[in-house]
Amino acid sequence: MIAETLIENAAVVTVDPRTGVLENGFVAVSEGVITALGSGAAAAAGVAGRLRLDAEGGIVIPGLVNCHTHLPMVLFRGLADDMALQDWLSGFIFPAEQRHINRSSVRAATRLACAEMLLSGTTTCCDGYFFEDEVADVLADCGLRAVAGQGVIDFPAPGVPDARRNVAHGADFLDRGERAGGRVQPSLFCHAPYTCASRTIRAAKAAADRRGAWLQIHVAETRGEKAQVREAGGLSPVAYLDRLGVLDGRTLLVHCVWADERDVAIIAASGAAVAHCPQSNMKLASGVAPLPDFLSAGIPTGLGTDGCASNNDLDMFAEMDTAAKLHKVFRKDPTVADAAAILRMATLGGAEALGMAERVGSLTVGKAADLVVLHARRPHLVPVYDPVSLVVYSAGAGDVRHVMVGGELRVREGRLVDVDLEGVMAEAAPFADRIRRDLLSGGKEASAAERD
Amino acid sequence: MIAETLIENAAVVTVDPRTGVLENGFVAVSEGVITALGSGAAAAAGVAGRLRLDAEGGIVIPGLVNCHTHLPMVLFRGLADDMALQDWLSGFIFPAEQRHINRSSVRAATRLACAEMLLSGTTTCCDGYFFEDEVADVLADCGLRAVAGQGVIDFPAPGVPDARRNVAHGADFLDRGERAGGRVQPSLFCHAPYTCASRTIRAAKAAADRRGAWLQIHVAETRGEKAQVREAGGLSPVAYLDRLGVLDGRTLLVHCVWADERDVAIIAASGAAVAHCPQSNMKLASGVAPLPDFLSAGIPTGLGTDGCASNNDLDMFAEMDTAAKLHKVFRKDPTVADAAAILRMATLGGAEALGMAERVGSLTVGKAADLVVLHARRPHLVPVYDPVSLVVYSAGAGDVRHVMVGGELRVREGRLVDVDLEGVMAEAAPFADRIRRDLLSGGKEASAAERD
Repeated sequence: MIAETLIENAAVVTVDPRTGVLENGFVAVSEGVITALGSGAAAAAGVAGRLRLDAEGGIVIPGLVNCHTHLPMVLFRGLADDMALQDWLSGFIFPAEQRHINRSSVRAATRLACAEMLLSGTTTCCDGYFFEDEVADVLADCGLRAVAGQGVIDFPAPGVPDARRNVAHGADFLDRGERAGGRVQPSLFCHAPYTCASRTIRAAKAAADRRGAWLQIHVAETRGEKAQVREAGGLSPVAYLDRLGVLDGRTLLVHCVWADERDVAIIAASGAAVAHCPQSNMKLASGVAPLPDFLSAGIPTGLGTDGCASNNDLDMFAEMDTAAKLHKVFRKDPTVADAAAILRMATLGGAEALGMAERVGSLTVGKAADLVVLHARRPHLVPVYDPVSLVVYSAGAGDVRHVMVGGELRVREGRLVDVDLEGVMAEAAPFADRIRRDLLSGGKEASAAERD
Repeated sequence: MIAETLIENAAVVTVDPRTGVLENGFVAVSEGVITALGSGAAAAAGVAGRLRLDAEGGIVIPGLVNCHTHLPMVLFRGLADDMALQDWLSGFIFPAEQRHINRSSVRAATRLACAEMLLSGTTTCCDGYFFEDEVADVLADCGLRAVAGQGVIDFPAPGVPDARRNVAHGADFLDRGERAGGRVQPSLFCHAPYTCASRTIRAAKAAADRRGAWLQIHVAETRGEKAQVREAGGLSPVAYLDRLGVLDGRTLLVHCVWADERDVAIIAASGAAVAHCPQSNMKLASGVAPLPDFLSAGIPTGLGTDGCASNNDLDMFAEMDTAAKLHKVFRKDPTVADAAAILRMATLGGAEALGMAERVGSLTVGKAADLVVLHARRPHLVPVYDPVSLVVYSAGAGDVRHVMVGGELRVREGRLVDVDLEGVMAEAAPFADRIRRDLLSGGKEASAAERD
């Protein structure tokens, strides 16, 4: 067999329970799909390749799945940190969104975010924001795999000035369908129970259902939200969504920090999935989600960075490292959230949460060739006793060498393939300059006139 | 003025409260010392340089100070993770130390650790281990600034088979004095109150005092230790050390996870310093140290990675990011441990804790030129609203471009200067192979005969 691409001399961390880790292994790729993998030399298995990539002993992992983010918020990276939530939102994030998020800025910002994701080993993301047509177009253009969720909120929002049209606007987005041959799937992203009325959430779910699309929603993120929802109707936020009838196998619940034992049982019974965002939850002091309970209840659970305003990057390696350590100290048990469970969450778990596990999430013959090759010969990556431990606890975004999505090399030797990275950064810069002048100099430069 | 080296076109984060951040700034270095810095073009300030480094808009920070580590334990990186403390120690760490730590392995491992530190922006470290003469020699040879602590423990230890000689052995190490013109200072590292008798700790402190050396000691790391010390004598571990009379301005208390309000007051009154190691404390599920209390009490506090067996790297960027986020969620307050406080802890705070603040820790005219230049043109490092936020929350070890210690460029364009990195890794590999065969294959290959 002659594959299009053959990656050799690698520790292949398949995240496939039947295969495990293949020492000194190879991965063969043709027509976008993994066609063979094994231990030892590919030649001994009768496998050759037209393009041969020598991993030089490096580790190959499935492409990382960032299960929750708001890509255009890369424009707000480091704009305001270390503040109380309300000051941060009302002083910076909401004004920045109102005055600086438009069709052009979303497009430029998403391009920047795609560059960051690919260079740090993320091949799939689940986004939720506004002007999502632009986000989805750029994701398709940049070669990522994605679920792109048009934002739904009961307030005037970027691109949706009339909140009464929010679900209709989202349904129109869904009607425009998938992009890039299904690589980018449309979805709806209801902001949260405290910003969307019950009829909005129900209508959004119905619109998504009609098109087989996912509904994403922030839920149980803060203690305050839990109290507010309970005060309004006597139910926890999760139980409230369950009462609305919107929890099922095509619902992605984001955060679930304040999910209690009953909530976990509700989620598990419903078939809904969870996106866990530990760094964002830490930075905003929201709390620590009961991740070990999600996993033991069998809930499909993915890992997410959240938007760059609250993290402040799209780095899934840092997110894995933090997740593994946070739950140990929070549960006072060094055995929870072990490296294998965390890597699984960042790959196959995320794929399950997004309904893509048949296609991606593990290195398995027949699945799409979404994979990352890490550098090997670096002092912080030796010795190699356990490749999975190295990936979670020692490797960083800076160690990504090659990245492939659907068999296409998008990063080679640490550089984006066929992308003018300086141009991508230059395109985003004027938008950041305007935000800086407006919000960090006390001025109010930007106006509705700058909107698209 | 013509400087030996001139770094231009940089956001200079001085960590000097009088200077703050210099936008579009420069740093001039001659004879190992910072001779000028400012905003704008160096030429306009009458400063030229023989070697000119264009930072291209990147950020310059003081060299990072890793305030607590056990360098030779890089050999145990990823050997065993996600285990209960006693299983980890008795099944892996203690056997590995007994059978595989010798003069040769310590030398090879420390060389590997120095490569990792320099490449990730650490210019100063405080080490505590055995065969510390070897560690100190390698640190001096590799160009780092360091406090090197010979281990003292009331059990047979690598290089100190007769525990009755532990303090005398350490005193001999101190007598051999500083290395590299004072760049590497000797110190004693008492393991902990539960592994060293009171007379050992007192004798070690007396030996250190006679030579003006620092005493390092792990203290109040785990809840179990606190209970054990209290049961033995009715005092908290910190109060017990205070009762022994060993707390003063040349004592570095490592961890202090279980320091309560009274302990914090004792430490502050004594003048002793703290080394805070959040990632290690998280991974081993030890707990969360009261960092905000250390800082508000004015205790000199540095940041440390701890050894690679419990982290699993020497990456101070990851340590900063985690520290900033951990205390927010643990205190339920997003305003604590802000980016500036965390960067200060990783630089000037560490220098204060090690008694080096007159020489290093901030970019100040007259201080040693220990500094790091970060890459600028990377998608996860734009936009730049606040360079301090970028350093703590967005930059990673992979973004280190140049590193200077005492005016010597040790890393240039991401590569070690005049070091055969492949050779360094190759030197360590056979020791790791022996550990792997011994501890991961069930054998008992290594023997006393392999000891130096």
